[in-house]
Amino acid sequence: MSESLRERIEQLGLHLPTPSQPIANYINHVVSQNQLFISGQIPLLDGKPAFIGRLGEVISEAEGINAAELAALGLLAQLSDALGDDLSKLVRIIRLGVFIAATPQFQRQGAVANGASNLLVNTLGDKGRHVRTAIGVASLPSGVAVELDAIFELTP
Amino acid sequence: MSESLRERIEQLGLHLPTPSQPIANYINHVVSQNQLFISGQIPLLDGKPAFIGRLGEVISEAEGINAAELAALGLLAQLSDALGDDLSKLVRIIRLGVFIAATPQFQRQGAVANGASNLLVNTLGDKGRHVRTAIGVASLPSGVAVELDAIFELTP
Amino acid sequence: MSESLRERIEQLGLHLPTPSQPIANYINHVVSQNQLFISGQIPLLDGKPAFIGRLGEVISEAEGINAAELAALGLLAQLSDALGDDLSKLVRIIRLGVFIAATPQFQRQGAVANGASNLLVNTLGDKGRHVRTAIGVASLPSGVAVELDAIFELTP
Repeated sequence: MSESLRERIEQLGLHLPTPSQPIANYINHVVSQNQLFISGQIPLLDGKPAFIGRLGEVISEAEGINAAELAALGLLAQLSDALGDDLSKLVRIIRLGVFIAATPQFQRQGAVANGASNLLVNTLGDKGRHVRTAIGVASLPSGVAVELDAIFELTP
Repeated sequence: MSESLRERIEQLGLHLPTPSQPIANYINHVVSQNQLFISGQIPLLDGKPAFIGRLGEVISEAEGINAAELAALGLLAQLSDALGDDLSKLVRIIRLGVFIAATPQFQRQGAVANGASNLLVNTLGDKGRHVRTAIGVASLPSGVAVELDAIFELTP
Repeated sequence: MSESLRERIEQLGLHLPTPSQPIANYINHVVSQNQLFISGQIPLLDGKPAFIGRLGEVISEAEGINAAELAALGLLAQLSDALGDDLSKLVRIIRLGVFIAATPQFQRQGAVANGASNLLVNTLGDKGRHVRTAIGVASLPSGVAVELDAIFELTP
């Protein structure tokens, strides 16, 4: 497989977005020792927040999965930016955080999270397997349905 | 004290469950350098989700504490699986994340989280003391009342 | 700039509070290798929980920003306690977690989180830039509007 993350994503028929830029006093990725931390990423289409609403209400499970895929592409865009698009510098993803705007009755957080987990494994192979925590939250920035963050391990 | 986590838990009159298996593209524990990350664990009885509902509604504070204990046993089952049940490989627990399905009015997240914190300290002694973050969330996978995740430090 | 965190905060016209003491089986800071983990901190005034309520309801955006600043001072109090108030031991803040008690309709989690991000950068300079994840939650301990946690990197 190619060591370019951008090429791998294109081989899946997907498109690596331009990494979003924070509009405040924070940054989107930080390296500490061998760990790369990435800020919470929301689903963006043409740079604009997409999939507005809650699971269990206006957002269907299938839409939630799409939202998780889109947010995962945002994580991968930050990863590519941090690595200069060179996957040989990546040991693996360690941890995925999945935050799903959901009603109190919604119980399928796992199914929605799979949208992101599957995309990460399809793109990164064995390096894409991760621990994760998926929870249903009250609301997310810009009203989106899904937000993701992650920790990756880099080569020394 | 025994260096078998299983034996310590049995000495407390409790039972270490079989570690749950993920049913998707993620895994339950990952080691990165000296850190062991564990996926979100929910309360399971005979392998089935238990304590369904929210704090401040159908789940009482006492039930929430029991749910937190049960989810903590799930964390310890993953820890035991990762260590081959040998506690001499454990430096300490670093961080506990506590997610409590709760109404907007519920204010006793700390009391519920103590169910998990106390079990960890009772089982692991000084190695069980940790930082933690406890929050009330809208809903959790399978509708359970409590979910926990954790980071442990291992010997080099 | 001074290497005393307390002095820097006083130069901003603010006051570093006494670090809160946990009232249960957890601790407020843990060092693992080069990383310092800090427990969730809530806004305290004279040691008592402040800014009770949810964003989008009884707590205005301006009050939410103030609550985030106050919780950030709590993080800095823990940081000062862990470092013996000596900032030369600090490499940087790595990650900020921002939990905002909010209605399902609330969309300005980022603006509230900026209250904390700005205070950290104003106090710590380049060492204060961080990744962050901001989410809206159902409810927080003692009913407060904002809770923060953090990971810092220390010198070897």
